[in-house]
Amino acid sequence: MLSLKEVIRPTTFIVSSKLRDRLGLDITIATESFQHTGSFKFRAAYNLAANVENNALLTASSGNFGQALAYACRLMGKKCTVVMPQTSAQVKIDAVRGFGATVDLIDTTKVARKKRVSQLAEQIPDAYLASAYDDKLVIEGNATLGDELSGNGFDTIIVPVGGGGLIAGIVQGLCRNGDSATVFGAEPLLGNDAARSFRAGKIIPNESEPETIADGARTVSIGDLNWPIIRDGVKGFIEVPETAISEAVRHYFELANLKSEPTGALSLGALLIDPQRFVGKRVCVIVSGGNVDTELYTKIIDRSANASFVK
Amino acid sequence: MLSLKEVIRPTTFIVSSKLRDRLGLDITIATESFQHTGSFKFRAAYNLAANVENNALLTASSGNFGQALAYACRLMGKKCTVVMPQTSAQVKIDAVRGFGATVDLIDTTKVARKKRVSQLAEQIPDAYLASAYDDKLVIEGNATLGDELSGNGFDTIIVPVGGGGLIAGIVQGLCRNGDSATVFGAEPLLGNDAARSFRAGKIIPNESEPETIADGARTVSIGDLNWPIIRDGVKGFIEVPETAISEAVRHYFELANLKSEPTGALSLGALLIDPQRFVGKRVCVIVSGGNVDTELYTKIIDRSANASFVK
Repeated sequence: MLSLKEVIRPTTFIVSSKLRDRLGLDITIATESFQHTGSFKFRAAYNLAANVENNALLTASSGNFGQALAYACRLMGKKCTVVMPQTSAQVKIDAVRGFGATVDLIDTTKVARKKRVSQLAEQIPDAYLASAYDDKLVIEGNATLGDELSGNGFDTIIVPVGGGGLIAGIVQGLCRNGDSATVFGAEPLLGNDAARSFRAGKIIPNESEPETIADGARTVSIGDLNWPIIRDGVKGFIEVPETAISEAVRHYFELANLKSEPTGALSLGALLIDPQRFVGKRVCVIVSGGNVDTELYTKIIDRSANASFVK
Repeated sequence: MLSLKEVIRPTTFIVSSKLRDRLGLDITIATESFQHTGSFKFRAAYNLAANVENNALLTASSGNFGQALAYACRLMGKKCTVVMPQTSAQVKIDAVRGFGATVDLIDTTKVARKKRVSQLAEQIPDAYLASAYDDKLVIEGNATLGDELSGNGFDTIIVPVGGGGLIAGIVQGLCRNGDSATVFGAEPLLGNDAARSFRAGKIIPNESEPETIADGARTVSIGDLNWPIIRDGVKGFIEVPETAISEAVRHYFELANLKSEPTGALSLGALLIDPQRFVGKRVCVIVSGGNVDTELYTKIIDRSANASFVK
């Protein structure tokens, strides 16, 4: 069996002088869009599939974690079942099936995801119920990105935040390598539970799944295991308006030749709303993934259809 | 002064299991879209700017070479003048100016590019007249990509071809590293002068600039210095129809999260028209650059507006 570090692809560092010139900042992009299955989620998924004793894994995901777990299970020769809303984009359903997983489509107006997962867990007694973000093995998998970021001399690292698994992993990875870079979370303003939790000193969930364009951050709450790592290791959270998320996707496309999904562009969006704050710092922005529907993407990058966020 | 190998960014290797599964081929992408200024042209441009004694460089380019030379000259503290048609996209003119070069806009219906370049050469007596593809320093610069490709165990390397500077450089780089990978050129069917030249055993130019979507391959002829290297070191040329170029751009977007310009997608287009030919081979497709106008790009990736090339 190959170890996690043998299987994962190192993150891709990109420096764009056009982007640096535009913002007047020393920016390095670290993108996970070329990771296996197109997002950082593979790091966690493979670490789960490789380290649990179960021969079957079960998760609920309409997004990147489903694809990542399906592919990780294929590599490990394990069974994988992914519960997805029947309203999911066909391309995402096809991607999970393409990696050999069983897709269980549900009508979310009739049955809650959690309930369906519990039903399936009874039917597949050997199945490990995999959380996309709240599991020690998930944090440990994501910590490999922290390992890769460390030692590069970054002053500041900005990380997209949904359930908090990525930022917790990065903090853990930096810490164990003795790297003292300052870590900020970038979160949609529309779903700012992490920012509110951080200010309150305790987990405060959103009332419902926020309707942000950053679909990877449509989480109700950060995870219980992630919380203490975030509370103690993160400098702060930047709440990013939807317009700045879209502008960041456009900047990546136009100035860095990078296809980012909206969630992945949260960290650059955080820079756009207050670039002055980071002048003189060596800043690394994490792009968590690149998987985005063509229709949505073309709408975002069409500048004629969007008011520019940056005046 | 930094040497070429210190300044250039190593090419970015990408493996997409979705792309491999779709085509049933062992494909590795080597993309130059994250090179300085977004294309391989920087390799040649910096090698020119660093090695000619002149303190000013002059070229005619509406595309990637203009940006690359402008940025290389900025790094070297040299003056740069780029002759561009006044019909060039504003974003391209702005990019060249953004790198500090002087842009000389001409009405190509009234004055030929060559003539304007000659006029300017008289006005700037110290200027080195830089060819985008036919110069020993250009081939030598591009050979660094051949160095990076060698030793990876590729059986076949497919390279986009316009003026032939890139493929000549790659052949030279592979050769001096003792790598025996088979090299194919991928050329638009609409501008197949290299394929026709290769069959005839002598340079046969196009009658006029071909109107292909692959704007980097709108060249009338391959260069004189490139020709003998191509004749002796290339296995053959694959002529790619426009529909396959567009399909390759879409495949990169959908399956590999990669933004490629149409010229950059020629090599994957060459695979799409006859994948069977490459079964069992370790194939590397070179993506020469990623700079493409938003409007054109969104038209290409919109699948609803395009008939699929692959049935």
